[in-house]
Amino acid sequence: MRIVVLAGGIGGARFLRGLKRAVPDADVTVIGNTGDDIHLFGLKVCPDLDTVMYTLGGGINEEQGWGRTDETFHLKEELAAYGVGPEWFGLGDRDFATHIVRTQMLGAGYPLSAVTEALCDRWKPGVRLIPMTDDRVETHVAVTLPDDGSAEGPGERRAIHFQEYWVRLRASVPAEAVVPVGAEQAKPAPGVLEAIAEADVILFPPSNPVVSVGTILAVPGIREAIADAGVPVIGLSPIIGDAPVRGMADKVLAAVGVESTAPAVAEHYGSGLLDGWLVDTVDAGCVERVEAAGIRCRAVPLMMTDVDAAARMAREALTLAEEVRAV
Amino acid sequence: MRIVVLAGGIGGARFLRGLKRAVPDADVTVIGNTGDDIHLFGLKVCPDLDTVMYTLGGGINEEQGWGRTDETFHLKEELAAYGVGPEWFGLGDRDFATHIVRTQMLGAGYPLSAVTEALCDRWKPGVRLIPMTDDRVETHVAVTLPDDGSAEGPGERRAIHFQEYWVRLRASVPAEAVVPVGAEQAKPAPGVLEAIAEADVILFPPSNPVVSVGTILAVPGIREAIADAGVPVIGLSPIIGDAPVRGMADKVLAAVGVESTAPAVAEHYGSGLLDGWLVDTVDAGCVERVEAAGIRCRAVPLMMTDVDAAARMAREALTLAEEVRAV
Repeated sequence: MRIVVLAGGIGGARFLRGLKRAVPDADVTVIGNTGDDIHLFGLKVCPDLDTVMYTLGGGINEEQGWGRTDETFHLKEELAAYGVGPEWFGLGDRDFATHIVRTQMLGAGYPLSAVTEALCDRWKPGVRLIPMTDDRVETHVAVTLPDDGSAEGPGERRAIHFQEYWVRLRASVPAEAVVPVGAEQAKPAPGVLEAIAEADVILFPPSNPVVSVGTILAVPGIREAIADAGVPVIGLSPIIGDAPVRGMADKVLAAVGVESTAPAVAEHYGSGLLDGWLVDTVDAGCVERVEAAGIRCRAVPLMMTDVDAAARMAREALTLAEEVRAV
Repeated sequence: MRIVVLAGGIGGARFLRGLKRAVPDADVTVIGNTGDDIHLFGLKVCPDLDTVMYTLGGGINEEQGWGRTDETFHLKEELAAYGVGPEWFGLGDRDFATHIVRTQMLGAGYPLSAVTEALCDRWKPGVRLIPMTDDRVETHVAVTLPDDGSAEGPGERRAIHFQEYWVRLRASVPAEAVVPVGAEQAKPAPGVLEAIAEADVILFPPSNPVVSVGTILAVPGIREAIADAGVPVIGLSPIIGDAPVRGMADKVLAAVGVESTAPAVAEHYGSGLLDGWLVDTVDAGCVERVEAAGIRCRAVPLMMTDVDAAARMAREALTLAEEVRAV
């Protein structure tokens, strides 16, 4: 079975680990979000790709869900001692190695997809991990900063890097717009469209529908390829009972005018793209609404408390795919 | 008193610490060797400049004489896990920060001299540290590698980076030639010639006469400026009793046809450059030979066992400078 998964960071990575346990022999291609990539200290950092790679490769810091296990932060301390920031982005000593290798390979002319493949040679994630594009796409968030006497000035509207919005500001101000800068000009990375065309099923894990899955879909050709693939496309709601399972998906959903509920996210994807949608059992009441939108829907437990729970979710998604296929 | 010191790494740095203790109010300008600079992992590493900066700034690993105190090596371990080398060059997690900041500033267009000044803003070494040049100079060593079945092939003559000769091979094969590649086209960094012209005394610490002081002197204009400065130029022998105090200076002295003795190094610098020369008390018997070469010479203890010993050496050098001046 060939499965394509569109993944963001933590939610996507943990779902993938469940999927690998549920169907260990499946041929899984992960199309990773690169819209949250950022240049820090002259290095190219790809947080979502790395979270998938570390999680599936056994190097993830389990507790926080990102970064490396057994990590130290001496390099970052020293950068701060030099007055070099930003300090709000937590790069550890071990993690730095990934960014140094990546930056060096990119500088030598390799595209990000080839670099990612080389990094995965070490981590052996058990999936094929492809960045959505080799081109530079950077998600920016339009915000109006509060009058805090800061250099930005009171009430000034600015576009800031997604990481600055997410990590530094902790989404503490409304996201007025979310723009994947560069996406319109980007091309899918080699292998992306081929994997979609050859897939038996396509899954949207409980990743952020705007800044993770949404950014991947913003690369011209990817949404169309998924819609035209003629195979079941199944999503899992990242919203349980009107709140994001983790992160601050509600903040960026508001920016695109979508309410933070499981059925609203399904409608946002739309029946032109999505064939099936899993909501949590607490949202069982909305199954009818989703199905009214032309999307087959089931209510199952969606809390990824451990790998087994994630594996059960993956099995439910594949079961729903078979239902869709059988229709 | 304005003092100019031409410094390499460990020997130069430890002598400078003694000099600062001996004459804390002196205005000291250090012209640092950059011939041993190397690009590693896409980063610009300046071992000699950093050894001076860390030693005088209180961040040095005292025991080994280079690198940072309280250091960890997680990043390097991870690079090795990615199969990215070289593994023979010991960059620690804290040390990496210096190279990242430097590389980022160089990439932004700042010359190395400005970058070094910025790094010293943090370390406050108590001296003005200027790289010998802002241009790229790289010391290469010609060697004939032994027939060890390696990829290089038996008996093949190759030019390798000085660091590879020094750190990887531990100078285990003869240095057939030492070439400061790029030196001929290099210009002294801003401030170098001015500091020499304004100096009251110029010191050559017990640094390597070939690959440290010699490389600095190979930058067109520096040797001439020192010879023409009209102030005492005093050196301290890095050779005690026919052996280098530390390092493998004998190996590179052989490459330039100079025997590894205190008087031979003085003669190598020559009376056109050097006015005074300190040899160790065990080499008292060669004072006459040095003076016969037109260089005033004294025998004093030259083992830098601690900062006080280095301070005594600095005082002896300044005393010899006064003797020279009084003639």
